[in-house]
Amino acid sequence: MKCISLLTDFGLQDAFVGVMKGVIFGIAPDVRIVDLSHQIAPQNILQGAIILADSYRYFPSGSIHLAVVDPGVGTKRAGLAAQIGAHTFVAPDNGLLTCVLDQAEQSGDSIRAVRLENRHYWLPQTSRTFHGRDIFAPVAAHLAKGVSLDSFGSSLEQPVRIDIPRAARSPDGWRAEILMIDAFGNLITNLKAEQLAGMFIHEVRVGGAVIRQLANTFGEAEPGALIALIDSSQRLSIGLVDGSAAEKLGAKVGDQVEVALRQAELE
Amino acid sequence: MKCISLLTDFGLQDAFVGVMKGVIFGIAPDVRIVDLSHQIAPQNILQGAIILADSYRYFPSGSIHLAVVDPGVGTKRAGLAAQIGAHTFVAPDNGLLTCVLDQAEQSGDSIRAVRLENRHYWLPQTSRTFHGRDIFAPVAAHLAKGVSLDSFGSSLEQPVRIDIPRAARSPDGWRAEILMIDAFGNLITNLKAEQLAGMFIHEVRVGGAVIRQLANTFGEAEPGALIALIDSSQRLSIGLVDGSAAEKLGAKVGDQVEVALRQAELE
Amino acid sequence: MKCISLLTDFGLQDAFVGVMKGVIFGIAPDVRIVDLSHQIAPQNILQGAIILADSYRYFPSGSIHLAVVDPGVGTKRAGLAAQIGAHTFVAPDNGLLTCVLDQAEQSGDSIRAVRLENRHYWLPQTSRTFHGRDIFAPVAAHLAKGVSLDSFGSSLEQPVRIDIPRAARSPDGWRAEILMIDAFGNLITNLKAEQLAGMFIHEVRVGGAVIRQLANTFGEAEPGALIALIDSSQRLSIGLVDGSAAEKLGAKVGDQVEVALRQAELE
Repeated sequence: MKCISLLTDFGLQDAFVGVMKGVIFGIAPDVRIVDLSHQIAPQNILQGAIILADSYRYFPSGSIHLAVVDPGVGTKRAGLAAQIGAHTFVAPDNGLLTCVLDQAEQSGDSIRAVRLENRHYWLPQTSRTFHGRDIFAPVAAHLAKGVSLDSFGSSLEQPVRIDIPRAARSPDGWRAEILMIDAFGNLITNLKAEQLAGMFIHEVRVGGAVIRQLANTFGEAEPGALIALIDSSQRLSIGLVDGSAAEKLGAKVGDQVEVALRQAELE
Repeated sequence: MKCISLLTDFGLQDAFVGVMKGVIFGIAPDVRIVDLSHQIAPQNILQGAIILADSYRYFPSGSIHLAVVDPGVGTKRAGLAAQIGAHTFVAPDNGLLTCVLDQAEQSGDSIRAVRLENRHYWLPQTSRTFHGRDIFAPVAAHLAKGVSLDSFGSSLEQPVRIDIPRAARSPDGWRAEILMIDAFGNLITNLKAEQLAGMFIHEVRVGGAVIRQLANTFGEAEPGALIALIDSSQRLSIGLVDGSAAEKLGAKVGDQVEVALRQAELE
Repeated sequence: MKCISLLTDFGLQDAFVGVMKGVIFGIAPDVRIVDLSHQIAPQNILQGAIILADSYRYFPSGSIHLAVVDPGVGTKRAGLAAQIGAHTFVAPDNGLLTCVLDQAEQSGDSIRAVRLENRHYWLPQTSRTFHGRDIFAPVAAHLAKGVSLDSFGSSLEQPVRIDIPRAARSPDGWRAEILMIDAFGNLITNLKAEQLAGMFIHEVRVGGAVIRQLANTFGEAEPGALIALIDSSQRLSIGLVDGSAAEKLGAKVGDQVEVALRQAELE
């Protein structure tokens, strides 16, 4: 009774996601399917890569994560299946696994990937524009049924990686940027808690605002206050108590976030 | 094979809901998970309380309802699990169960609640901002596996309740208000069918419009007509045939709705 | 362990869909429920009919497809259950099955339909405005448990059909129209690949643009290019590489799409 998680940029208006689930249940009727998100911004591989890496460890060992953000569908870009630690991933080989691979290397997880080449595990007819349905979904379902990784194709030594914007040191602390904005309007940055280990933040500057209120949680501050906090994905983020920081600051993905540390730490 | 329903204000853009499901399946792989709604307006406890109470009785006996609308996450507000009649609820203790508790008292259902205190049933690490993932989801999963209510913590005698706006009698009938607007643009009021028992409506006034057409269903009236009807949750609501009453009337939640009864009933 | 797919215009803001699932699991706890879409435009039977017909064959044989786009709910329009080839459908009898029936006739699938009349398989109390919950969901669940089609009511010889706009021949090729716009902003037309068999497109004209680039997939063309392609549902569609054709062209459902063929094919 394996779990298959789904992450796509297909949205929920059309039946794309439902059709993929129909295909999966046709092959592996016992799996549990969980939607991670289908509202990745269209063709935004970076956003998909981050959300996937922040999420997959909360699933049971042995889970399969099917991710399709695929601007190159139908071109020569390969498809891949990869066993990374206790989890298996199925995706186009376009960088969508970058953050998962980075994490795995940091934590010493094993990594083994293959190209999707064996048409025996695809739908009999494959379109040029919907490999999610025709290739990735059936492969994920066969993996869930226990087909071994090697059955799907030849070894893939170096899955494609994309550049992930990283926070860099600045004269007075860190220069970070907004990676994502969540549904509450919180600004999620690329500065991670581990990069702040042993440091104390003096202030955070973003969109003309200077934030000196560092909180553990939203309820600690007054409604309407801008706060900086380490969020549940261990990232520095900026929120507005009972409101949307993105709206208040007119902030958008890619905007710079400057973090000044207390002086003692710069000496 | 228990059902766990989920009600949150997390939206579907981010992976918050998917991650909660991953946590649940890791603990209780056999459950059925059903989304009630994840589009409660951010931090709108009232809306969550109403939708939860209108919905849960349609689930099988023994179901667990996990509701997270949680502006106070990470503060001292308690978490709770409550057995109410044949259903079990897991939620922050912030009033989200108000309408369920009111209904239970009216119908004589048993009520037993505990504080979530026993960390044995939480994730090993808990964040300050995402108790849905770290506390509520694992507790719901353990309940589904049969762990008894008392195992989670000490007895909670008086769960927090919020004020629910109630329809009041007026000189010529009822003064109600718009509680919610559904996806079709129907205006759902706080006047319930049982409050109208034995009465006959003369007219309904809302947003400058006077509605004299009381219908059993939409198909009875002409396209473009405003109608008042008792909806599927037994509430007086105002709809526009083949359109959105909210848009036509510029109506919003909290707007007043006046219901005039036929004179005979006022004497 | 049957699959039940759900297609509605209920949206995901309210708990309508979740409540239907609660009802289904109460009757048939073993089924798999898959959302096809709940964002059919309100009361747009045509859109529902097309998406249903394009999707259902990807589900396992024996699946049940529950479709509710139901402007006539509570009036005298009948409800129906229909066995069509290896799949079963439950819907209001308002044309929602038109495209499925058309396909079935073309491919010689068997068709057998009954009216939903037997209240034994409904919820004990039925509202006038939410037959999805009170009638269609319980009927689908009973079908999943193996109740035979004839148990639900008397034979329905001619399910209602609606007019489906069809592409017509024009002096220089085909006159088609936009049937749907998907979440990527692709314009899906009513011209099907089979209608183009053996023909070669010279150009496609839509919203003032003339498209001569016929592609197999998006990755073949430059970002920003408008392309015409046969999509994964075997329909001619117009897309913008890395963008939204609908936005760029200001196109909407119903707009005309002219397809000119290469001259040799017109002689």
